[in-house]
Amino acid sequence: MALPNTYFDIVIIGAGPVGLLLSVCLSRWGYKIKHIDNRPVPTATGRADGIQPRSLEVLKNLGLKRKIMAHDPAKVYEVAFWDPSNNGIVRTGTWPSCPSFLDARYPFTALLHQGLVERVFIDDLARNGTRVDRPWTITRFENDGRDNTYPVSVHLKNLDSNVVEHVHTKYLFSGEGARSFVREQLGIQFQHKDPVAHVWGVMDGVVRTNFPDIKMKCTIHSDYGSIMVIPREANMVRLYIQIASSTDKDWNPRKTATVEEVQQAAMNILKPYEISWDRVEWYSIYPIGQGISEKYTVDHRIFMGGDCCHTHSPKAGQGMNTAFHDAINLAWKLHHVEAGFADRSILETYESERKLIAETLLNFDAQYAKLFSQRHPSASEVGHANNHVSSPSTSKEEKNQFVETFKANCEFTTGFGVAYQPNLFNWSSSLPSTTSSSLFNPPGNKCTPGRILPPATVTRVVDANVVHLENEIPFNGSFRFFVFAGKPQTSKQALKDLSLYLQSPQSFYARFSTVSAESADLHHELHNPHSRFFSICLTIAAKRADILIADLPELFQDYSSHVYADDIWDKRVPDAQAAAHAKVGLEVENRDGKGAGGVVVVRPDGHVGCVVRLVEGRGTVEALEEYFAGFVVGGRKRAEMKDWSAEEEKTLGKFEGGVRAHL
Amino acid sequence: MALPNTYFDIVIIGAGPVGLLLSVCLSRWGYKIKHIDNRPVPTATGRADGIQPRSLEVLKNLGLKRKIMAHDPAKVYEVAFWDPSNNGIVRTGTWPSCPSFLDARYPFTALLHQGLVERVFIDDLARNGTRVDRPWTITRFENDGRDNTYPVSVHLKNLDSNVVEHVHTKYLFSGEGARSFVREQLGIQFQHKDPVAHVWGVMDGVVRTNFPDIKMKCTIHSDYGSIMVIPREANMVRLYIQIASSTDKDWNPRKTATVEEVQQAAMNILKPYEISWDRVEWYSIYPIGQGISEKYTVDHRIFMGGDCCHTHSPKAGQGMNTAFHDAINLAWKLHHVEAGFADRSILETYESERKLIAETLLNFDAQYAKLFSQRHPSASEVGHANNHVSSPSTSKEEKNQFVETFKANCEFTTGFGVAYQPNLFNWSSSLPSTTSSSLFNPPGNKCTPGRILPPATVTRVVDANVVHLENEIPFNGSFRFFVFAGKPQTSKQALKDLSLYLQSPQSFYARFSTVSAESADLHHELHNPHSRFFSICLTIAAKRADILIADLPELFQDYSSHVYADDIWDKRVPDAQAAAHAKVGLEVENRDGKGAGGVVVVRPDGHVGCVVRLVEGRGTVEALEEYFAGFVVGGRKRAEMKDWSAEEEKTLGKFEGGVRAHL
Repeated sequence: MALPNTYFDIVIIGAGPVGLLLSVCLSRWGYKIKHIDNRPVPTATGRADGIQPRSLEVLKNLGLKRKIMAHDPAKVYEVAFWDPSNNGIVRTGTWPSCPSFLDARYPFTALLHQGLVERVFIDDLARNGTRVDRPWTITRFENDGRDNTYPVSVHLKNLDSNVVEHVHTKYLFSGEGARSFVREQLGIQFQHKDPVAHVWGVMDGVVRTNFPDIKMKCTIHSDYGSIMVIPREANMVRLYIQIASSTDKDWNPRKTATVEEVQQAAMNILKPYEISWDRVEWYSIYPIGQGISEKYTVDHRIFMGGDCCHTHSPKAGQGMNTAFHDAINLAWKLHHVEAGFADRSILETYESERKLIAETLLNFDAQYAKLFSQRHPSASEVGHANNHVSSPSTSKEEKNQFVETFKANCEFTTGFGVAYQPNLFNWSSSLPSTTSSSLFNPPGNKCTPGRILPPATVTRVVDANVVHLENEIPFNGSFRFFVFAGKPQTSKQALKDLSLYLQSPQSFYARFSTVSAESADLHHELHNPHSRFFSICLTIAAKRADILIADLPELFQDYSSHVYADDIWDKRVPDAQAAAHAKVGLEVENRDGKGAGGVVVVRPDGHVGCVVRLVEGRGTVEALEEYFAGFVVGGRKRAEMKDWSAEEEKTLGKFEGGVRAHL
Repeated sequence: MALPNTYFDIVIIGAGPVGLLLSVCLSRWGYKIKHIDNRPVPTATGRADGIQPRSLEVLKNLGLKRKIMAHDPAKVYEVAFWDPSNNGIVRTGTWPSCPSFLDARYPFTALLHQGLVERVFIDDLARNGTRVDRPWTITRFENDGRDNTYPVSVHLKNLDSNVVEHVHTKYLFSGEGARSFVREQLGIQFQHKDPVAHVWGVMDGVVRTNFPDIKMKCTIHSDYGSIMVIPREANMVRLYIQIASSTDKDWNPRKTATVEEVQQAAMNILKPYEISWDRVEWYSIYPIGQGISEKYTVDHRIFMGGDCCHTHSPKAGQGMNTAFHDAINLAWKLHHVEAGFADRSILETYESERKLIAETLLNFDAQYAKLFSQRHPSASEVGHANNHVSSPSTSKEEKNQFVETFKANCEFTTGFGVAYQPNLFNWSSSLPSTTSSSLFNPPGNKCTPGRILPPATVTRVVDANVVHLENEIPFNGSFRFFVFAGKPQTSKQALKDLSLYLQSPQSFYARFSTVSAESADLHHELHNPHSRFFSICLTIAAKRADILIADLPELFQDYSSHVYADDIWDKRVPDAQAAAHAKVGLEVENRDGKGAGGVVVVRPDGHVGCVVRLVEGRGTVEALEEYFAGFVVGGRKRAEMKDWSAEEEKTLGKFEGGVRAHL
């Protein structure tokens, strides 16, 4: 019997970046969503505007980057620092906003207003049958646990008609922003890293000026105050001006300023340059206290994310980006629990992973914002930092605190520094102590569990397309196995064994096979021919024309669109025989007698889970089995595996190509 | 008094690629267009499908590439050759479809059906106020010359309502396709390079097969016949099968074949591989005789382009691409005449330039199609051509005629081989004899007048964006001056002189200034601050941070968004001090005492017009004056320039910054 239409998989409050992206992911995977927002219409203009390099990669993986870039955002490649001089201000340095040591596919920040980003998400939702109901608000909610499946009840109210709805849901998510009703009702405290509060003025508009860096991101200090310049789409410029600070003698958190006052302040600060406004598109004054939510959930049924969990100054352009990462981190974990793949306990890692990142952000922000608002450095302080170099220098002349802070944190601000700590998903060399396999984290490996997979350019065998390996599996909720096989002759037997043991009917891989259960026609299914939870990419250190898919073990034949030749030269590893192998640090030849290559297990969000050496026999699959046993439903512990091995030895012959046999 | 609404700048017949792209260009420039097509709706599926690498660059320059790529076309990077073997067919070689020696930004062919391309053009037309009227046909036309401005009268008929319209126009364009009413009425002959006619079957669909190269472009010969495989968007595959040829004993130009017969033929040819169809999207049988129109116009008022002028086999995937180039070649020339910039005589270059290209295409096609339909080579004939090399090899083993033809022609098929012959626009070293300046085509110069500008990656000074220099000026109808200044100290005086003399009120540059005439606010005009007919890019061999726009001569300050630092390393010229300079072959230092750098004049369609050395004094501007005197309205001949020089010497001081003074 179908449930009444007041039952949902999730109720999402708020249609800002975090709520929308969570909704986008879950809608694509078929979940039933009630999504509301208390504003009558989507964001028209203004608000957040910066999409960092790592976020662009995430959007690319979601298939949404092109649609966002179609709005022609401004691109920031460098940040310029301006400081007081005898005659107004002078440029004292510039720095790449995404230095080349970060190896980013898109080494720039894209700037366009939040409303355009939201629109792309809303269109995607519509294609998957979800809409945002407006203007609705949440008035009451409760996890009373009486219904095991739909334990949360939520009362919603239409702000136009005052009509009330009472719905039941598996999960409730608050993406309400800094003033969250849900957080308040749960009694969760907001902690402050930096006790200083600020009032900011922000203005988007079209200007005319002879200030030479108006198309660059600038932080400007002058004897008249400080300003931040950010170029925008459609020939606009955003100016951030700090209007008051709780450290001011006459501090008033309700202090305000007119458009004209802010413009006059900008005119004073920019001297000797001139500036005037053709048009003001958006203007806002807002007080902001830096803070972080003590908890992101109390019951693992009601979650929060985005500004609801962390607020900070706009300086580092992190708000929308942190929201994106909150959303995708939670999305795949909810999916894995609800699809019956993973234990409910994995939901605990949402708070533990994301809160630490927010804390790092706030530490950075406190340091950066303080410098921004207080100091008046001299030109010589910055010195030679204007050289366009590609790695952080530590020469004496660059010991300017402001620039140093910026440099030290650019890995973080670009999003590439996000490093989740060791836990059940992230098996770094220090964890877990229970691991018995010596195949984890092979020597030379350059992938760090908890961090993203390094990018690599390879040739797809089936169509000779030159592609970005790290983006070949879309954001489909699957764990990604990047198999690096080294040279074909070296790994022939190991690949055969990997194929054989993964397809053994009792393996974690085969147990979550969707083939027989759904009896769907998967001939045209490129990414998930066997299971919704696993996607496999095989990269071989050979020329494309020398790789014949028909010669590969049959598991890989089912992934024929995911076989790659590691035959593209890369200037970052100019002497490597096979650049993609070199970038992840896996050998192409069996030099130490322990096998070449390896399997890099990547979480659905692109962060590395573990790295396992590729060996002949059942060792590699046993190690993978051990990794997944930590969280999949019915994961087999080491002892059980032993029994299985013995029994399986007898039956394996019959099941050769286990999964495939169901086709 | 406004003209009645039966008066148009141009009447365009046919809304295929050539008609639509011509319409797109002219609509953007504000012309009033009557555009009709005799089909009730745009192309729904099938027909032409290949967009070549050079065409992708053209679409990028038009700002339309992203919209076309949004349809996720298949990308072809390699072509595979399959030949008969003892057991069916075997792959005997592969070749990159756009070898790296061609230095393409997009080294692949994009494949998607013509209707999707048309849709992008139709949307662009709508944004500029032009629509295609359907279903309308042309019934009569005449250039009676009675009206000097609107000499052509055209009778149109609605095919639904039979309503007739009589309109008056400056120009009539036929993009009607192979069976052109206009061409027929004008009595223009269609010439045949290759007397052999063929009947082709073409089928788009979704297949399932174990043929390994189904995602590649393949030419397959077997004992059962020949087939061409082309991957398509949306997981489709196009198969071309030759059904009959006029060289057959039982030749019948009306020979046909059912879908099932073509599928059976494909099954036989592909043995030992299997193939079946999930879905057929489009199927067509068409006879095609290769041919070329004797003329493209008779009166320079009524023009033709696209398939109307040249038909050929579908093998080389050239149809739509040739149409694009016909359209843009004509568009800017019509614009320059109608806008009062150029003499009417430039319209003669449309036929002379484009017809020669079509003839080259037909020669290639005859050779290629003949090979395709007749030969049955052995595997050893192709030999080692399957190596993934980056430049054409001539080893004995590769002396396979088919592969050789392909290799020799890949420059042509990608579109990079289009080389317009010397004429009033293309001042190669052999032309014109009247040129008195020794500054043309400086030694070392690697730009060939008539060919496109080599691509170069540079840093835009104003915002530090890394950009493609050759694409920095959009398709705006302007001549583009790419000034390569070498090192800043070397060219300081030369740039100052270039600025000064270009802005002298009598120069060709200043005479077409639109500043005072329209008194528009050009502060935000990036590409045309002074004139609709000229855009300037200045590239300096220095680091971005060392270039201060405020220090440049004022002409260049008005082009502040078009100043570039030549500071990006390029693997094609790994040892160059300044890669962009090296790629065009202009010196960065004054080694021979004759000055460094130069000005590359590029036509609005991206083809190089002339290259002039950058020198101190008035020499560079005089040379440019001489180039433009060949075709601009009121162009001053050499003798007049002398007079001007003498007189101007006295007044220049007063006019310093001539154009700028009007601002």
